Amino acid sequence: MELKRDIAARPQVVNSVKNQFRNFPMVPRVVFGRGCFDQLGDILISRRQHSDAPFIFLVDDVFEGTELVQRIPRIFNDQLIFISADREPRTAQVDALVKKIQNDFDDVPSGIVGIGGGTLLDLSKAVAIMLTNTGRADEYQGWDLVNKPSLYHAGIPTISGTGAEVSRTTVLLGPDKKLGINSDYTTFDQVVLDPDLTQGVCKSQWFYTGMDCFIHCIESLKGTYLNAFSQSYGEKALELCKEVFLEELEPAESRDKLMMASWHGGMSIAYSQVGVAHAMSYGLGFLLGVRHGIGNCLVFQHLEEFYPEGVALFDKMRQKHHIELPTGICANLDDNEFDTMISVAMGMVPLWENALGKDWRKVITSEKLEAIYRKI
Amino acid sequence: MELKRDIAARPQVVNSVKNQFRNFPMVPRVVFGRGCFDQLGDILISRRQHSDAPFIFLVDDVFEGTELVQRIPRIFNDQLIFISADREPRTAQVDALVKKIQNDFDDVPSGIVGIGGGTLLDLSKAVAIMLTNTGRADEYQGWDLVNKPSLYHAGIPTISGTGAEVSRTTVLLGPDKKLGINSDYTTFDQVVLDPDLTQGVCKSQWFYTGMDCFIHCIESLKGTYLNAFSQSYGEKALELCKEVFLEELEPAESRDKLMMASWHGGMSIAYSQVGVAHAMSYGLGFLLGVRHGIGNCLVFQHLEEFYPEGVALFDKMRQKHHIELPTGICANLDDNEFDTMISVAMGMVPLWENALGKDWRKVITSEKLEAIYRKI
Repeated sequence: MELKRDIAARPQVVNSVKNQFRNFPMVPRVVFGRGCFDQLGDILISRRQHSDAPFIFLVDDVFEGTELVQRIPRIFNDQLIFISADREPRTAQVDALVKKIQNDFDDVPSGIVGIGGGTLLDLSKAVAIMLTNTGRADEYQGWDLVNKPSLYHAGIPTISGTGAEVSRTTVLLGPDKKLGINSDYTTFDQVVLDPDLTQGVCKSQWFYTGMDCFIHCIESLKGTYLNAFSQSYGEKALELCKEVFLEELEPAESRDKLMMASWHGGMSIAYSQVGVAHAMSYGLGFLLGVRHGIGNCLVFQHLEEFYPEGVALFDKMRQKHHIELPTGICANLDDNEFDTMISVAMGMVPLWENALGKDWRKVITSEKLEAIYRKI
Repeated sequence: MELKRDIAARPQVVNSVKNQFRNFPMVPRVVFGRGCFDQLGDILISRRQHSDAPFIFLVDDVFEGTELVQRIPRIFNDQLIFISADREPRTAQVDALVKKIQNDFDDVPSGIVGIGGGTLLDLSKAVAIMLTNTGRADEYQGWDLVNKPSLYHAGIPTISGTGAEVSRTTVLLGPDKKLGINSDYTTFDQVVLDPDLTQGVCKSQWFYTGMDCFIHCIESLKGTYLNAFSQSYGEKALELCKEVFLEELEPAESRDKLMMASWHGGMSIAYSQVGVAHAMSYGLGFLLGVRHGIGNCLVFQHLEEFYPEGVALFDKMRQKHHIELPTGICANLDDNEFDTMISVAMGMVPLWENALGKDWRKVITSEKLEAIYRKI
C-alpha cells in the first residue's frame, strides 16, 4: 500500500523508469553562426500560415530600444511583446500571455519566437504548448502530460548556459511547485544560435548562467542514469566550460564556445538528469524567487560531499572571475519556510534518484538539507 | 568570363558559400540504448498511414536467417528486402528499388526503414527521396536539388563510423560520378542507435568503418570551413575514436563509444566538409568500386603532407589492431584510368576548398594526385 501511494503521489518516478530509452526529440533545425540572426526572416517565411496568422516575438525587455529590435523581421500583423526576465517564469504568466494572444487575434498565430535567456525561452515553449492545449499551464507541470502538438516555436538564446534551447522541458514556477513541463512537444522546432547576441551580457549574469551549464554537466556525468549518449555530450560541454572559464580565449571565441557548451550541456540531460544542486535550487527558487543560475551556484558551493572535484573546479572559476556570491540568503527564514524549501527539493525524485541511486532516501534527510540551506 | 564558366560548371561552389550558415536539419528523433531496437514497433505504429500502406525494411543481407530478422516488427503487408552491401550503393539500384516498391503496392508506403551500414542507410535515404520525387536518382546528385519532402524514413546502423545516420547526404555511384544527394530532405526522420547491433562485425570491417569516422574528424577539424559548432562535435568524435582504437575498453563500452563517435563525427560535417582523403577515395570508388571505408584508409595513409598528426595516429591504430592494408590496387591501371580517378577527385570542389582554401588549385595538380594514386 505504501508503495502504491508513493507512486501515485510521484508519477515522475514511473515515467523516469519507463523512459529509460526515451525516443528523444532533437531540435529539428538549427543554424549556428556569428550574425546568423539576420537569417530569421527567411527562416520564418516558410512557416507563415497566411497574412493574418502572425508571429509573436517574446523578447527580453533588456533589448527594448536597442538595435536588435530593429533587426527582428516583423511583417503583417506580427506582434512584439517585451517581457522582463527579472523574475523566474510563472505558470500564471504563461496563462496571461496565452489569453492576451487569443484576445488580440482572430486567427491562430503562425508561431512563437522567443528571444532572450532561459526565462524567455521557457516562456515561449510554454506559450506555444498552451496555445494548442486546453486548461492552465500548471496542469501540465510534470512528465508527458501534454497531449497535442504545440504551435511552431523558435528559440534564440541571447545568453548561454541554461540549455533551454535544446531541452524537452520548460521549467515554471507554479502555484504549488517549481517544475518543468517535460514533453516531446516542448522542444523548439527551430533554434538560431548567433554568438554575437551574447555580447554585452554583464559579467555576473554571464558567470551564473554559464555555471548552470557547468553544474548540469557535473550532475549529469556523476549521475546514475548516465549512458554513453549523454556522457559524450556532457564531457564535451564540460571541456568547453573549462576552456571558457579557466583559459584565456578571445572574446568572440569564448562566446562561440560557451554557446556550444550550453547546447551540448542541454543534450547531456537527454538520457540523464540533473542532481542535488538543481533539486535544492528549485526549493530556493520556489520560496524566495531566487533566479535559477545564481540559485544553483548558492547551493553547489556547499556540495563538496557529493561533487568534490566539481566544487573544487567551481571555486577556481569563481575566484578567477572575482565573483562574490551573496550570503545570508536563508539567515532570517523560519521553520515553516525551511520546511517548504525542503519539501519542494525532496519532491524532485528523479533528480535525487539520478544523483544517489534508488536508495537516496537513506542519505538525504530533512535535517541534512536544512543544514545545507542554513549555510546559504 | 572564365569565372562565370567555372561557376556554371560547378554549382556546388556557389552553394557552399551561400550556405555558410546553413539552417541544418538535425535528426528529429533518436533513441539510444543497448537493446532499444525492440522499441521499433512502438515507434513505427504512430507513423503507419493505414493498413495498406506498408513499411519497407531494407536490410543488409548478412542478417538473412539471423535472430535480428525475427525481431523486425513486420505487420500487415510490410515488406522486407535483403540487399547486399558488397558493392557501393548505386543510383540505378535506387531506381530499381523504387520501381519494385511502386509495382508491388497500390498505396504509397508509410515509410522506409534501413537496417545496416552506410550502404543500406544511404540506399534507404535515397529510396525515400525518390518515392516522392520524379525522375532518376542521378538527377538529384549534387547540392539542394530535391524539391519535395521525402517519405518518412528511419535509419538503424549495425556498424559504426560512416555518420550516414545523421548526415544530410546519401552518397551514390552514378553513371558519371560518385556524389551525394545533399538536401534537407535526405536526413532521417528517426534514428535507432542500439550498440548491441554492432556485435559480430568482423575486425577489418569494424576498423575500416571506424576509420571513416576518424578521417572525417581529421578532415573536418583541419578544414578551412570549420566553425565552433562543427569543431565541438569533431573534437568529441575524435576523442572517442582515440579511446576506442588506442585504449583498452570493455567490448560493450567500446561499441557504445564508437556509435557515439560516428554520430558526432557525422554532425561535425554540418558546417564543415571532408577533405583530401574523401575526394581521392571517391575517385577510387568510382573507377574501381573500392568500398568507401577501405578507400579512405588506402588514400589517407599517404597524406602525411596534409594531415601529419592524423596520419601518425592512423598508423598507430592500424598497427595496434594488426590491420594490413591491401597493396598494388592501382598497379595495373592505364593512363585513361588514372585520368578518370583524378577527374572525379578534382571535381569535389567543396572538399578541396575546405581542405586547402580557395587557392587549392595552386597546390593540387593532376601530377600530384597521380603520384599519390600510384602509391596505393
